[in-house]
Amino acid sequence: MPRLVTAHSNPLIKSVRALRDKKGRREQGCFIAEGLRIMTDARNRDRLPHILLYSGAAADHPLGAELIARTEAAGGDVVETTPEILSKTTGKDNAQGLLGVYRIPPTDLAQIDRDAAPLWIVAQALRDPGNLGTILRTGDAVGAGGLILVDDCADPFSVEAVRASMGAVFTQGIAAASWDDFLSWLRMHDAQLVGTSLAATFDYQEPRYAKPCFLLVGNEQAGLPDAYANACDLLVKIPMMGAADSLNAAVATAVMAYEVRNQWRRS
Amino acid sequence: MPRLVTAHSNPLIKSVRALRDKKGRREQGCFIAEGLRIMTDARNRDRLPHILLYSGAAADHPLGAELIARTEAAGGDVVETTPEILSKTTGKDNAQGLLGVYRIPPTDLAQIDRDAAPLWIVAQALRDPGNLGTILRTGDAVGAGGLILVDDCADPFSVEAVRASMGAVFTQGIAAASWDDFLSWLRMHDAQLVGTSLAATFDYQEPRYAKPCFLLVGNEQAGLPDAYANACDLLVKIPMMGAADSLNAAVATAVMAYEVRNQWRRS
Repeated sequence: MPRLVTAHSNPLIKSVRALRDKKGRREQGCFIAEGLRIMTDARNRDRLPHILLYSGAAADHPLGAELIARTEAAGGDVVETTPEILSKTTGKDNAQGLLGVYRIPPTDLAQIDRDAAPLWIVAQALRDPGNLGTILRTGDAVGAGGLILVDDCADPFSVEAVRASMGAVFTQGIAAASWDDFLSWLRMHDAQLVGTSLAATFDYQEPRYAKPCFLLVGNEQAGLPDAYANACDLLVKIPMMGAADSLNAAVATAVMAYEVRNQWRRS
Repeated sequence: MPRLVTAHSNPLIKSVRALRDKKGRREQGCFIAEGLRIMTDARNRDRLPHILLYSGAAADHPLGAELIARTEAAGGDVVETTPEILSKTTGKDNAQGLLGVYRIPPTDLAQIDRDAAPLWIVAQALRDPGNLGTILRTGDAVGAGGLILVDDCADPFSVEAVRASMGAVFTQGIAAASWDDFLSWLRMHDAQLVGTSLAATFDYQEPRYAKPCFLLVGNEQAGLPDAYANACDLLVKIPMMGAADSLNAAVATAVMAYEVRNQWRRS
């Protein structure tokens, strides 16, 4: 039977609320995902929360009831609480009244199976968690294997990133590495590393992309450092026809990823 | 000579701070844009703020000094203030110490010159101001004429949207209309209205897009209402190869817009 908790000061509520901060996530090794849709996507990948908080109507929804039952059956901690506590926990209206706490999977490069997909996305020093989440969502859509974070990126397990990923945080592999470690790992086997750069000679539709293709996207403000651009097998530019000289990082990633996929669809 | 204001309670500071809310923007007919880059982009389009707030180092930067001088010469109100007041005004670190208040241009459909560009973007009930700003930025990049807002959209002149637009709020035409008014206006002349839909028969790379092309993007959660989809000349789908059934709205818009542009570049 689910417990009922209505006090903000409850230790469990406080520990879940601590997961809003990177420090709390690092200490507990867990992250928060909210909502029926994302949590059902997770369950479809055999990922159940080990803590589930819900309020009111969530238990009346068949999918909500199923999530609750399965989490309990798996030995998870299921707690009924108030909509107000739920909202305060994630800093946003949780309209569906459902929140899960999931374990952060290992993020070392060694657990990335590069043969699992022909396309991978590599983010360098991306600072906006919304961008990271959106890139995960796009990665899922284009059949990428996952996202490799290089240098000091935002946390893909932050509430904002998980929300923007729309469940892709559960379907995409996620790894983090230094640039040097990433490059050593990359060059152990065949791979095409593709960067975008304003200084590139090639229009992004010119080259033929090879499998496995690693799309490297640089920091929102500074773009790719020169040394990183020089390490790419291909540097391409997306045409810019207006006054601006760059696209949003998640948009540029998607435009590149669909070009790669479209080439492969045609051939 | 710029005035110096250091009190949060100063009436001018309070009136600028009120522009963070839609109510304040509607009452004053103005919006806020921040930072050297966006404000310089605006100036390049002969748009100067009628109020300019700056702090510290902004006046030492040549572009900052020029913006200050030009705004004063044009009779604008230039005020030096503290970094703290600047940050509180927009709810975010304003690292460059520069903020402008600009008049909201008229947003009726009548001022849209559809012959000015072959591509236009139409947003239906988009609720995320960041998405609107990102779509404006993409519109600029693909040489679109502007963004037409249909139904109840987020405010493209909100601080978040302006920030995400990276200056495109000054280069893109912006109009708002009811769906019926938009459709009447659209059908007065040749136009191809293109929507994306999961139920579409055509892959988005199949059809040939005609000029002027109006790309219709639906609400983040619900997508396009059926009646709106039925009014489109073309309904296409972007292939989804993973677990998710949709892309972020700004990402989907960009993938569509680049396909249209790429077709025209080739022909």
